[in-house]
Amino acid sequence: MTTSRPRETALQLRAERVIPGGMYGHNVRKFLWPDAPQFWARASGYRIWDVDGNEYVDLMCSWGPIILGHHHPAVEEAVERQRRQQDTANGPGDVFVELAELLVASVSHAHWCVLAKNGGDVTTLALTVARAATGRSTVLVARGAYHGSLPWCSSRTAGVTPGDRAHIDYFDYNDLSSVQAAAHRADGDLAAVILTPHKHDAGSDQEPVRPEFAKGLRTLCDTAGAALILDEVRTGFRVAYGSSWQTMGIEPDLSCWSKAIANGYPISALLGSEHLREAAKAVSIGGTFWTSAVPMAAAVATLRTLRIEDGPARMADTGQQVVDGLRAAAEQHGVLVRLSGPACMPYLAFDDDTGYHKAKLWSAAMADGGVYVNPSHNWFISTALDHVAVERIVHAADTAFATVADAS
Amino acid sequence: MTTSRPRETALQLRAERVIPGGMYGHNVRKFLWPDAPQFWARASGYRIWDVDGNEYVDLMCSWGPIILGHHHPAVEEAVERQRRQQDTANGPGDVFVELAELLVASVSHAHWCVLAKNGGDVTTLALTVARAATGRSTVLVARGAYHGSLPWCSSRTAGVTPGDRAHIDYFDYNDLSSVQAAAHRADGDLAAVILTPHKHDAGSDQEPVRPEFAKGLRTLCDTAGAALILDEVRTGFRVAYGSSWQTMGIEPDLSCWSKAIANGYPISALLGSEHLREAAKAVSIGGTFWTSAVPMAAAVATLRTLRIEDGPARMADTGQQVVDGLRAAAEQHGVLVRLSGPACMPYLAFDDDTGYHKAKLWSAAMADGGVYVNPSHNWFISTALDHVAVERIVHAADTAFATVADAS
Repeated sequence: MTTSRPRETALQLRAERVIPGGMYGHNVRKFLWPDAPQFWARASGYRIWDVDGNEYVDLMCSWGPIILGHHHPAVEEAVERQRRQQDTANGPGDVFVELAELLVASVSHAHWCVLAKNGGDVTTLALTVARAATGRSTVLVARGAYHGSLPWCSSRTAGVTPGDRAHIDYFDYNDLSSVQAAAHRADGDLAAVILTPHKHDAGSDQEPVRPEFAKGLRTLCDTAGAALILDEVRTGFRVAYGSSWQTMGIEPDLSCWSKAIANGYPISALLGSEHLREAAKAVSIGGTFWTSAVPMAAAVATLRTLRIEDGPARMADTGQQVVDGLRAAAEQHGVLVRLSGPACMPYLAFDDDTGYHKAKLWSAAMADGGVYVNPSHNWFISTALDHVAVERIVHAADTAFATVADAS
Repeated sequence: MTTSRPRETALQLRAERVIPGGMYGHNVRKFLWPDAPQFWARASGYRIWDVDGNEYVDLMCSWGPIILGHHHPAVEEAVERQRRQQDTANGPGDVFVELAELLVASVSHAHWCVLAKNGGDVTTLALTVARAATGRSTVLVARGAYHGSLPWCSSRTAGVTPGDRAHIDYFDYNDLSSVQAAAHRADGDLAAVILTPHKHDAGSDQEPVRPEFAKGLRTLCDTAGAALILDEVRTGFRVAYGSSWQTMGIEPDLSCWSKAIANGYPISALLGSEHLREAAKAVSIGGTFWTSAVPMAAAVATLRTLRIEDGPARMADTGQQVVDGLRAAAEQHGVLVRLSGPACMPYLAFDDDTGYHKAKLWSAAMADGGVYVNPSHNWFISTALDHVAVERIVHAADTAFATVADAS
């Protein structure tokens, strides 16, 4: 966009002084294109506005949490009603039980539920429960996978100690022999295997899970007496209503949920199978805001709406329209791209694209055309995305692919 | 209370099925008296209602977060305004910078700020920053202190691995020689010392920090090139506006904040000194809800209100009235008690009280009298507590101490 960004620029200068590097997490400058907005002002449905008033179709959905569109009336009404009563109290409200019951009823393997705040709270808790249950320490993690920003799993290693990962070993996603080798190295100390329902590592093409890999993992965990942990933080209730592996008929022992379950309100959940209930009782669980009622009310309203409106089917359908439209536009301009992952959370990558150069160029052009995407992370489709939005996306993509073609 | 509790009982039965042990964290049954409410329905100012409609004066303040009273109009107005614009977006809003600037301006040692969700997010991040800065691993923790529910610091050890605490060593609060001994054991690997501004371990009398201990720690950290981390999660902005050690003139390198800074909205903050900025840039920082704007707007409104209304002075004053009233009532009934800690977060303990038997009896009688306290954890005073509330507390205490005296 060639418009000036006076508010963005002023905020960046101020942020530089009081925030390390001016920004952290997903939105650091190096992950974005030059002139990309880092600060946001307003959101409604599928539309978002940066602090300088530029409007975009939102294809990032706040990195996953927004699944019904921003400010969905059913969620906001439930939130307003709950907020008038109480939010963070001395203990939970009745909505704590209501949400736990709803999650347990919605996810086939689950018999119990713990509610927390961050995705990382519950991936970490899953490891702790598995370790308490087995009396063992080793957990196998897929190389390159993201399970949170805590030292045992963070993507950077500055400040990480040898102890933090002393009992973590690695395997390659979809490669059962690499899991078997790691289990062998664990030498009787295998507590758990944790993985995402499909491969969605940042900056790489997504890969569906191979059913024989999933089956093999289940057997391996059963044989070893280890827990199988599914990290559904990014996929949960977007790919399917309930477990993403439900259709394959393979059940984990523990599953981790956050992001989309409350349409933007801060909450996460660990769900567990009956045989791990005693272990869950034995471990430390607790956080100041973990019993807050408002995000729980938001979650109940979000899940009910998703079920009533058949949300995952709608997102798959809209996502497919986006994917098909982009593929056609890329082809028309002779730009070689790869679109991977479930259509509800697609990832676009350009062939021969060192340093995401083309991806950033394309994303910048999309922003110019009024569509917000990220160049090196999968996007997220919400149920708010309608026919008009899809047209705007495909229209912007036409110009954006032309820009990439011209620059090549 | 002799009234029946049909809603409480029904919720407990339902919770038993879908929550491990029916409840976790602070509110598990064994920490409370028989018949204590675990589920809450409504809150306003200093008044709270359980799910069966019983009203109490709130002396727990949601375990710290409520500092201006529930639903303070200045906070709720700021929240409502922000919520209409956006909460969890693709990045922060301008309030992110506003809050960071306000915190850095309010806490004397601070030059930069990172915002997260849980207290444990920022205590853990403090360790990581200190380790990244020093290239060392060992962190000294006061024996019995609480810094969160993560494996490196949790109060239970089920599921905790040797690696989780491989680089943690312990000292005794207010005993400088024990710190020196631990620093000696670290043998050149000392990255940081973390402690609370005063000793407030659960289930023990509180102790003020000895100024020579604080001074000695500062010197020890300077000499060793280690970071001094102050965990202000429980004390922050209640004991003082800004650092609790400010009046002593001793500055930490890192400080951790959460609980009261947003009057109940979920947020935490790590503040750091200039020399640790580069380390903070190098470590992994990020969480899905860490840039959500509503809790930040709540924090700005809370901190401004606390400053304008001289909140800490008011809470100290009201707290002192409560403490004096309780002390007098206990004496009158010949019950030997100890009241410790800053008056804004007092802890009451009974002499010769194995298993908190008297404390639970007394807390139950207080609940009967319409005042909610916890038998084995310090309480929290808010600025909403007025003269009428203090009278209700002292009146209930008179009967409650009589109950304990009768039972002895």
